[in-house]
Amino acid sequence: MKPLVECVPNFSEGRRPEVVKAIAAAIAAVPGVRVLDHEADANHNRCVITFVGDPEAALRGAFEGAKMAVTLIDMETHTGEHPRVGAMDVCPFVPISGVTLEDCVSLARRLGERVAGELGVPVYFYEAAATRPERKALPDVRKGEYEGLKAEIATNPARAPDLGPLRLHPTAGATIIGARPPLIAYNVNLKTSDLSVAKKIAKAIRERDGGLPAVRALGMELKDRGLVQVSINLVDYKKTPPHVVFEKVRQEAAMLGVEVVGSEVVGLIPLEAVVMAADHALKLEGFTANQVLESRLSE
Amino acid sequence: MKPLVECVPNFSEGRRPEVVKAIAAAIAAVPGVRVLDHEADANHNRCVITFVGDPEAALRGAFEGAKMAVTLIDMETHTGEHPRVGAMDVCPFVPISGVTLEDCVSLARRLGERVAGELGVPVYFYEAAATRPERKALPDVRKGEYEGLKAEIATNPARAPDLGPLRLHPTAGATIIGARPPLIAYNVNLKTSDLSVAKKIAKAIRERDGGLPAVRALGMELKDRGLVQVSINLVDYKKTPPHVVFEKVRQEAAMLGVEVVGSEVVGLIPLEAVVMAADHALKLEGFTANQVLESRLSE
Repeated sequence: MKPLVECVPNFSEGRRPEVVKAIAAAIAAVPGVRVLDHEADANHNRCVITFVGDPEAALRGAFEGAKMAVTLIDMETHTGEHPRVGAMDVCPFVPISGVTLEDCVSLARRLGERVAGELGVPVYFYEAAATRPERKALPDVRKGEYEGLKAEIATNPARAPDLGPLRLHPTAGATIIGARPPLIAYNVNLKTSDLSVAKKIAKAIRERDGGLPAVRALGMELKDRGLVQVSINLVDYKKTPPHVVFEKVRQEAAMLGVEVVGSEVVGLIPLEAVVMAADHALKLEGFTANQVLESRLSE
Repeated sequence: MKPLVECVPNFSEGRRPEVVKAIAAAIAAVPGVRVLDHEADANHNRCVITFVGDPEAALRGAFEGAKMAVTLIDMETHTGEHPRVGAMDVCPFVPISGVTLEDCVSLARRLGERVAGELGVPVYFYEAAATRPERKALPDVRKGEYEGLKAEIATNPARAPDLGPLRLHPTAGATIIGARPPLIAYNVNLKTSDLSVAKKIAKAIRERDGGLPAVRALGMELKDRGLVQVSINLVDYKKTPPHVVFEKVRQEAAMLGVEVVGSEVVGLIPLEAVVMAADHALKLEGFTANQVLESRLSE
């Protein structure tokens, strides 16, 4: 399969559609880039642009997006409900096919060099690209937001950027760049209206409480259907794929005398995770995603 | 998803690589066409070219292949082990995504009009494009091969073509054009060396003997592994998908006290069949192949 990287930069603009469009257009203008989606939220005053491309195209797309955001967004006047530190606030690279997470860490580093060097914006690396354990989690890097970081960046060594000047860019602030596996939003629905059942199962399966690796989970009500749901984020489907978490939820539910109604994938899912489920169900020998006819078309 | 048709024409040339290449090149030169594979067999003196494209590109690709074959292949001097009636012997259109089998029947009709009208080659329609029940099966249409058809085409009304002249093309013979669902070559391996077990299960599951619809199956030995195999062709996976036949084989084997070791997909499989298996395993609600990230890239 053709090497393919997804990039999901978040920009601190969700109220001026013309700015969101200009940033998306700057990204889409890079040959080899395909913008799959962009969503803006006025309350958050933030937009998320999802695009894919070969690694070099993804890198250029992210840089062009950052450059346009630096030109058009002024953090000094920015307000919004969502935490943020800069114009291009966060930019993760995600391996989709034919590339590793390590390849995406390299892309993050190279983007960081360009953003710091050419745009004069201080850069922090997070998740798989983090340079120290305490910078892995995004909320930790973003603590204090634009205003807090502005006060501390020069004086508190713990807040010094990984690359770039020891001061925020006067209008664009800072940027947090990283690499992470694709996230799958996956829910399992249970045949009961008892929320405590969903909460118990969520606790049993999530990594934080000693459950399955790379699994985050919450119990929720589905009031319109009279059901409850275990709402799951699979943050690394190679560690725990959907079919493994499904089976675990089914077992936990059975122990509580509750049936699984079904499950749902919210948004997109990488082909490989679908193939893993089919592989498991059919006990396939030596099957790879390359045998899926449609995957040949992007070769 | 972008509408996508697969086309798998068979040409009566497997010994002169330059002829196979010229035909493949004529097909590949059509914008929107992607040639995925071509295989030539010298004993059969025959080649199979697999290509995909949007419906109009697939139609043009097939016509350009036929035209080149008419120019370069002489059936009067052709010999080979595989039954054949013409230079472009057989040409099926196969719906992959965003098109129906009926759309492919229309493509077959339009290709037939052009091959008969512009190249002067008599055309027979088969499978889903057949104009009468006795022409559905390819072996029935090809009965007597080039030589037999040459003798009968003008005199036996049952052998008259669906389109074109009442005589074979002087060098290119006739062409059989049709539409069929994608075929999945799928094997289930059993933990026994007793061939009779595989034969019994093959008989129980194949359509011909009252088993599952659109399933062909044979029992085979896998001598190197000391196992036996139910070797299956799924000729319409929408009627019987891999996960249904797998489960049926598992049940039949269990009744004979035999375990399923695993299964294998030979060659390519449409994404939808993989999604059906995952869907079944995860009891997915409202999931479609469009949610597979990679399928977005061909949009």
